[in-house]
Formats: sequence, C-alpha cells, structure tokens
Amino acid sequence: MSQWKQIQNLEIRLLEHVDYLYDDNFPMDIRQVLASWLESQDWDTAASDESLSAVLFNNLLSQLDRVRAHELNFLQRHNMKMIQQQLQVKYSSSPINMARVISTCLREERRILSSVCMQEQGPLEKSLQN
Amino acid sequence: MSQWKQIQNLEIRLLEHVDYLYDDNFPMDIRQVLASWLESQDWDTAASDESLSAVLFNNLLSQLDRVRAHELNFLQRHNMKMIQQQLQVKYSSSPINMARVISTCLREERRILSSVCMQEQGPLEKSLQN
Repeated sequence: MSQWKQIQNLEIRLLEHVDYLYDDNFPMDIRQVLASWLESQDWDTAASDESLSAVLFNNLLSQLDRVRAHELNFLQRHNMKMIQQQLQVKYSSSPINMARVISTCLREERRILSSVCMQEQGPLEKSLQN
Repeated sequence: MSQWKQIQNLEIRLLEHVDYLYDDNFPMDIRQVLASWLESQDWDTAASDESLSAVLFNNLLSQLDRVRAHELNFLQRHNMKMIQQQLQVKYSSSPINMARVISTCLREERRILSSVCMQEQGPLEKSLQN
C-alpha cells in the first residue's frame, strides 16, 4: 500500500496533522494524483542537490502534463492547469525549494505513520524488542 | 438544468473560454460545489452595494462550512478549508470585490451559453424572429 493510501486510513485526529503539511507550497492535489511517482523519487537527496532538484521539477511538470491530458473532468483539468502555473511561478528559478518542501512533507508523513505503529504495538511486543 | 450544468456540456473550444474566467479570485471548486446557490443570489446588485455584498460574502462562507462539514473525502475537505482561508484573506475587508468577480463570471457564462443558442438557431428560426 502506498504511503499516501496509509495516510488516508488514519483517524481524523492524525489526519489533521497531515492537513497542515499541505498548502500552496505543495498542493495536496499533487500528492494525490502523483502519489506513487512522488514516493519513488529521492527528494531527500534533491533537497540539497540543485541539479537533481531541477531534473525532478521538470519531471514533475511532465507527470502533471500526462495526468491532465488523460483527465476527462473539466474541473479537475482546470485545477491541474492552475497548479502547474503556480508551481512554475513559485519554483522555476529555485527548484531546490520545491524539493525541500516535498522532502519535508513525505518525511513528516512517515513520522506520523511510524508513531501510529508504535502506539499499536502492545507492551509484550515492545518488551520483546528491548 | 443549472447554468453550471449547461456550461459543462459545452464543446471543448467553448469550455476553454470558461476556463479563463476562473482563478484564485474565484476558484472553480466553489462554482462547482455551490452551483445552484450561487445562481440564486443577486450578484449584479451586490457588485454595487456594499452592505448586500457583505451579507453574501458571509453567506458564501457559511455555505462552504456546510459543504465541508458533510464532505467525507479528506482531499476535498482540505481543499475547501484552503479556499475558505484564501477568500477570507482576499475579500474580508472588501466583499464588494468578490461580488464583482462572481457577477462577471456568471454574466460571461450566460454570454457564452447564449452565443451557442444563436449558432444553433437555423436561418428559418432567425427569420421568424425578425
């Protein structure tokens, strides 16, 4: 199951933490439509590597082009176009900033998911690990 | 059929004109989720009436609260929250500007729809009208 699918199965209290991670800097629509692709890229390295972040920025825009070309719903197609324009304005001169935002979002999601795993482990399992 | 439903049935060439009407000043998501309510308010009067525009601005935010409270999808709920925050930042001190934007959008939609009706009328129907 993708990380994003796991996130959406969280209880509302934890979803509120996720809610705060996403804004205009990295719209949640992108997280949703490119979930698997985003999770298979190395954002942690790109967050400190200008050339890799530039490659990933262009690849992300191409991925959004592909999604938009196949989208039949007028509203969704419009929203994709708006988001692409926003990203180009915000990050075309500094794609490393986008990589940093995405790296942080994905890491925070992992932190939230692992905190749930720790809570779900009973005292017996915890003591077996120690 | 609501005006918004008719708009979505237009051919792609005309939908592109509609596409350009909507941006951060009036997100298309609002047009979609509040279609009937928006079409039943007097935005043309509100566009030159400060007190009516203030009432409609607050009513629009209440309508979005209601939609968000019933929305089960995490992404849609998040997007509604983001849009409400954007509108509050943009229009809380000048709701008349929002009324002007909405009035223009709805009028442009009607203009596009009526241009289609004119094209669909054959020469006979047109001559009967004259």
